[in-house]
Amino acid sequence: MNNFIYYNPTAILFGRGQADAVGERMAPLGRNILLLSGGASAERSGLLDRVREKLRTAGVAYTELPGVKPNPVIEKVREGAALCKSRRLDAVLSVGGGSVLDSAKVIASAARHEGDPWELLAKKIKPANPLPVGCVLTLAATGSEANGNAVISNPATAQKLAWYHPQAYPRFSILDPELTFTVPREHTAYGAVDIMAHVFEQYFHDVQATPLQDGVAETVLRTVAATAPIAMARPDDYASRANLMWASTLALHGVVGAGVVGDWTCHMLEHELSAKYDIAHGAGLAVVYPAWMELMAPRKPARFRQFAVNAWGIDPRGRDDLAVAREGVAATRSFFRDTLGVGVRLSDYGIAPDRLNEMAQAVYDLKGPTGLGGLTREDLERVYRGAL
Amino acid sequence: MNNFIYYNPTAILFGRGQADAVGERMAPLGRNILLLSGGASAERSGLLDRVREKLRTAGVAYTELPGVKPNPVIEKVREGAALCKSRRLDAVLSVGGGSVLDSAKVIASAARHEGDPWELLAKKIKPANPLPVGCVLTLAATGSEANGNAVISNPATAQKLAWYHPQAYPRFSILDPELTFTVPREHTAYGAVDIMAHVFEQYFHDVQATPLQDGVAETVLRTVAATAPIAMARPDDYASRANLMWASTLALHGVVGAGVVGDWTCHMLEHELSAKYDIAHGAGLAVVYPAWMELMAPRKPARFRQFAVNAWGIDPRGRDDLAVAREGVAATRSFFRDTLGVGVRLSDYGIAPDRLNEMAQAVYDLKGPTGLGGLTREDLERVYRGAL
Repeated sequence: MNNFIYYNPTAILFGRGQADAVGERMAPLGRNILLLSGGASAERSGLLDRVREKLRTAGVAYTELPGVKPNPVIEKVREGAALCKSRRLDAVLSVGGGSVLDSAKVIASAARHEGDPWELLAKKIKPANPLPVGCVLTLAATGSEANGNAVISNPATAQKLAWYHPQAYPRFSILDPELTFTVPREHTAYGAVDIMAHVFEQYFHDVQATPLQDGVAETVLRTVAATAPIAMARPDDYASRANLMWASTLALHGVVGAGVVGDWTCHMLEHELSAKYDIAHGAGLAVVYPAWMELMAPRKPARFRQFAVNAWGIDPRGRDDLAVAREGVAATRSFFRDTLGVGVRLSDYGIAPDRLNEMAQAVYDLKGPTGLGGLTREDLERVYRGAL
Repeated sequence: MNNFIYYNPTAILFGRGQADAVGERMAPLGRNILLLSGGASAERSGLLDRVREKLRTAGVAYTELPGVKPNPVIEKVREGAALCKSRRLDAVLSVGGGSVLDSAKVIASAARHEGDPWELLAKKIKPANPLPVGCVLTLAATGSEANGNAVISNPATAQKLAWYHPQAYPRFSILDPELTFTVPREHTAYGAVDIMAHVFEQYFHDVQATPLQDGVAETVLRTVAATAPIAMARPDDYASRANLMWASTLALHGVVGAGVVGDWTCHMLEHELSAKYDIAHGAGLAVVYPAWMELMAPRKPARFRQFAVNAWGIDPRGRDDLAVAREGVAATRSFFRDTLGVGVRLSDYGIAPDRLNEMAQAVYDLKGPTGLGGLTREDLERVYRGAL
């Protein structure tokens, strides 16, 4: 196990009815807030009306900014930061999924920054004392509800960049699994891929003697594998929705990654993909990850064997590590494609191979030969080509 | 999964050399602090000198109060609280194991309380804005390093009471596994029992659909089972010490207990035992727990079967739940007795059966028929008698 610092100050309110606490939780953070939301679903479901009423009752005034989209863009962040400055707002409340919350985090910091908000992403700027952020979550996927991460796209530069700020953790996140009952089948599946991918990024490493991190990671993977299909078949199955939601948080809450070295190559490969083609993040990950695993399993057979056995329950008896490892990779792709119904090939999304070289170069320029196995530029392109 | 609120604001600095950060971590919390410690070992090992130097360098003045003993007593808490008041100290630093840290937490709150510190325990008083507490941990056992719990004994009333205060979480806890290299073999074993017992208390419940909590709990148990014997045989084996230390924290850090119902019957049975006979906490738990499991396994065979298979790797094929469950109970007792070398019978500690009735009554008076299976007073006595 490596040295680490673990610090996660987000208060999590988990379970049925917790959204009713939004007013009393928000009031100590701000009396004049930005209420940020996404598409029409939170309006349609009545959640936004419920939140508005609780805020009013708690004496919290709000300025609304709806319309944050999946793969959230910097333009909306600019709009939110400008509102915070011009109206002197003192906190941000995110009602939605990870796209809304990521935008809220960057808005809250950009409100304390004189220049253009994109500078935060491009130059990794972390303004001191950002506005406090609260969250009512409506999707189990990104894990953004209990960390200081955000990912924002800039269509003008065709970039999608990740950002971290230790002061960007939400002060509170309300996780009511009932709020995810209306998540469409397809997005439930993407969320499951996303949760698993977050675990993968922190699970495939070279650090020795990490049984606690391994066990927690494998537990999250097994739980997603067992519950996502149920949530897709019966959207209002509380137990499955609850386990998916808590799995999403635990995947990026810090315990899986404490004392190990995260990789994040596949996330960067995916960010290039969705920056260029605007496909769903979970879809891009389902394309990239099995291809990456196929490249990596022969290089790290023991680790991939452990993955196959402990995550997928594959019986290792009588076969060598690599054979078992490869079965684990096949099980992963099959789970994405056959069980979740998510396309796992670039061609499933109509993506031609003409820009793979360029995208691999862009990732390599950002990342260099880091990550498990120190992938070269050629390796990165090989991953994309393996997903054709 | 039940509703829950999860909030753990302790910053954990884990790994080799982290104790060197004690000055810079302490300085923002207080400039004139109480430095609380235990027996002679932290002095002998040079740790206390190292801490003193780092505090001086960071400009932190300290008043020392050494001598906190295992099964820490209220008298020392009174002494510490009086010092904090008379010298207007503004923070408390604990250097030692759980006994020192538990005392530090109660001192920090008692400094804000006008009456006798024992009232905090006896009346569950939680003074507002306790002094901030920092921690340099020297023992993997109690999990006190990342929660708001404390257990203090009062020899005058022969009581040992648990206390919780949401503001009593340490602001930071330094967990350097190298600081545990000098822990004697016997106390390494007691620590392992303690960690497992904390997991047991939160694992044996009736709540349905908790695969994440189960998996994390089972991971901690397997890790302790695998690493404690190595740490006992080779006290300076870093990987084992590190995994024991992180296991200790994870057991009571909140994730294992989120969304389930903790039991804590065995801890109360043990507190009565060590309040009356002053045996080590880990020893008392090794006595009580297998006896409690023997009573409970026939009442909850499916849960105890899962425990046997997932914590101890027992092959369940071809046998009914109860047979497998009982093998898990036997494996637990055997691990404590044969692998760790800890006595598992009251007679191993020279404890006669004459006060079992009285102790069972005392626990029942505090607890009533709560916990898994709603144990009666007779059940509680049966546990003690099963440990004769």
